[in-house]
Amino acid sequence: MISANDPSLTSWVNVPSNSDFPIQNLPFGVFKTAQLSARVGVAIGEHIVDLKSLHVLGYFENLPFRIEDFDTDTLNPIMKYGKKATRDLRNRISKLLRSGVTDLQGKEHHVSQVLAAMADAEMLLPVHVGDYTDFYSSIEHATNVGIMFRDPANALLPNWKHIPVGYHGRASSIVVSGTPLRRPKGQQIPNDATQPVYGASKLLDFELEMAFITYDGKALGESISTAEAEDFIFGMVLFNDWSARDIQKWEYVPLGPFLGKNFGSSASPWIVTLDALEPFKVAGPEQEPKVLDYLTYEGDKNYDIDLTVYIQPEGGSEHVVSESNFKYMYWNLCQQLAHHTVNGCNMRNGDMLASGTISGPVESSYGSMLELSWKGSKTVKLGDEGERKFIADGDTVIMRGHATKDGVRIGFGEVSGKILPAN
Amino acid sequence: MISANDPSLTSWVNVPSNSDFPIQNLPFGVFKTAQLSARVGVAIGEHIVDLKSLHVLGYFENLPFRIEDFDTDTLNPIMKYGKKATRDLRNRISKLLRSGVTDLQGKEHHVSQVLAAMADAEMLLPVHVGDYTDFYSSIEHATNVGIMFRDPANALLPNWKHIPVGYHGRASSIVVSGTPLRRPKGQQIPNDATQPVYGASKLLDFELEMAFITYDGKALGESISTAEAEDFIFGMVLFNDWSARDIQKWEYVPLGPFLGKNFGSSASPWIVTLDALEPFKVAGPEQEPKVLDYLTYEGDKNYDIDLTVYIQPEGGSEHVVSESNFKYMYWNLCQQLAHHTVNGCNMRNGDMLASGTISGPVESSYGSMLELSWKGSKTVKLGDEGERKFIADGDTVIMRGHATKDGVRIGFGEVSGKILPAN
Repeated sequence: MISANDPSLTSWVNVPSNSDFPIQNLPFGVFKTAQLSARVGVAIGEHIVDLKSLHVLGYFENLPFRIEDFDTDTLNPIMKYGKKATRDLRNRISKLLRSGVTDLQGKEHHVSQVLAAMADAEMLLPVHVGDYTDFYSSIEHATNVGIMFRDPANALLPNWKHIPVGYHGRASSIVVSGTPLRRPKGQQIPNDATQPVYGASKLLDFELEMAFITYDGKALGESISTAEAEDFIFGMVLFNDWSARDIQKWEYVPLGPFLGKNFGSSASPWIVTLDALEPFKVAGPEQEPKVLDYLTYEGDKNYDIDLTVYIQPEGGSEHVVSESNFKYMYWNLCQQLAHHTVNGCNMRNGDMLASGTISGPVESSYGSMLELSWKGSKTVKLGDEGERKFIADGDTVIMRGHATKDGVRIGFGEVSGKILPAN
Repeated sequence: MISANDPSLTSWVNVPSNSDFPIQNLPFGVFKTAQLSARVGVAIGEHIVDLKSLHVLGYFENLPFRIEDFDTDTLNPIMKYGKKATRDLRNRISKLLRSGVTDLQGKEHHVSQVLAAMADAEMLLPVHVGDYTDFYSSIEHATNVGIMFRDPANALLPNWKHIPVGYHGRASSIVVSGTPLRRPKGQQIPNDATQPVYGASKLLDFELEMAFITYDGKALGESISTAEAEDFIFGMVLFNDWSARDIQKWEYVPLGPFLGKNFGSSASPWIVTLDALEPFKVAGPEQEPKVLDYLTYEGDKNYDIDLTVYIQPEGGSEHVVSESNFKYMYWNLCQQLAHHTVNGCNMRNGDMLASGTISGPVESSYGSMLELSWKGSKTVKLGDEGERKFIADGDTVIMRGHATKDGVRIGFGEVSGKILPAN
């Protein structure tokens, strides 16, 4: 069988050069249009393949899915079938869309039913998120934060190189790309003050992250090893973990970030499968000191994914403020999932596990305004449209990401969000 | 109309003296039996009223609920209707069960259909928990922890009296009372070591807590005030926030507890409504310094609920290890909910917000083994069945709670959980 990732594959559906969604990608999402109720789709070029209609028309024979699994507003029902089933589904769609394969191609009465224009579609949050976890897995980010807020000589805390440090976040406030968010209000402590004040956050920030989405894991009390981890991961999205630095600073000791984070997080709508990302695996950073046995792994587990962050002021243009790469992560997905379950914690399908801020080694690759403005001590230029230390009302923050190899570009689309003034 | 809380009310259903479930309580839960699929029920004495059957028989006319809202394994569908609807439902059930009211009483062919024996029923987790938050609202507990781990002279952190400190926990691993849990494994740092080791937790603990369950809140970006808070709270359960102190200690800086907590939390199956608890409101501790405006409140917002923790060794008897009271809480439910949403964080029906460990002012009222054994420096006697510093394999931890006034006892039943050896 030809691999769905084969660089030589082309589709009879038009795919513009530089599209994030060639036939080698085929990410899953949930969409609706003026005509169509919410349903599962797969992106190809500038179109969305309507999987419900494909099933109704009989193209999914010998696959386990029911029509109602696609006739819904989340991907959770298809993810319930597990990795083999969704892999088979992607392979089937790849074949149906392949140049030279005439099962669907040329059947215009079917093609017109199953292809929707992306421009006409509204994308929804692709999964119902049961639990959301945020890691802290970039050594550059953790080091920068340690230098700024603690001790430059001992920037990393003692546990950092032993544990993929993570914490629980809020699932209810995860929104899909394009959803505006309100600047949060809350308690802050002015410099040198002993009493807090209440008001709108002045230090609103983005965090450039990626998140992976799980299948159902094992039962409560059992663990997933690093070797098993990929079998329990469906795919990845871009993720903006919005942060109010002033609220966070005052609240986070000793139990961690809370209101400084849970006013909203933004996710991109297309879940790019781990299968599609397989060709882009690279070695991660050397881990020294050696990690405990349950965190060891074999093979390459990092991914070479270029990431760019833009700020677009109200009525203005997009300006690049950070260029990073997912390959910098010190801890990889398999280590994160093995750690998360080593105590028996159970994963459910749709759980979202985010990377933490993805900063690279040079200043231009830092993944937050906190680092880019070095705690507000300098400004970040937005071309001829001003400058920023943190995010202003009316700013839209946009993150894009893609991997490229052998002429194939596997992209994530974008996650964007505009900040509205505080109530 | 006679209040459903009237102390003079009696039921034609037999209620043993000292029952947790007189007609003034009527807590909601989900149960199943050998004959009946999972469905919504209300406790009365030693029986469960089957609300699906009551609806089928026509007893819920003029209420908004559909039969399928009761024919399900969570309370979320009925909670979707909001506070007025569930209050009307409790009032209707109160009337149907009242001595002297003959709508249902005496109709034996109906009574036999709608009353199930508790002894024959299996209770399920009553809600699908969207997000779980754990607060840290007992000043005695926070002070004890501060003395043990930080500075006796400055036991409370600077933010503690300004913020109802809280953090996000794991929803997937919340289990109903009676579910055994495995001792977790994970990283720990031996005293004076610089490298962590991996193994089963040696310092397994309970935390005596209560949790409240919300209705759908406001939209993302809006806040719930302390004055509005009770309109968004359905009721409360007993809650054991199991903790592995050695895992927690090594992992929790800087982002908070994670694997030391998320291997399991146990909840009691009956949700006692805020309406049933209304007669037991008392004033809370004086809050000094004055809290910020959004945390001020009017009236009594604490609840006088006696709480007892027992340890039952494998094959042994129950031994009281702590006697506390929910009235000690420094921060009340209304302040917790107002704080949680002040930044626009959205609540969904079924969200669970726990109190944090409920310790009282004297040693016998401390709500964790960490405090009772003072970090393992002394032992807690289990009568003639040994002693403990922390929880041993095979131990069952049981928590019970009830409020009493004017001869009426409103109880919560119990939350129990047995610890199995590590895998």
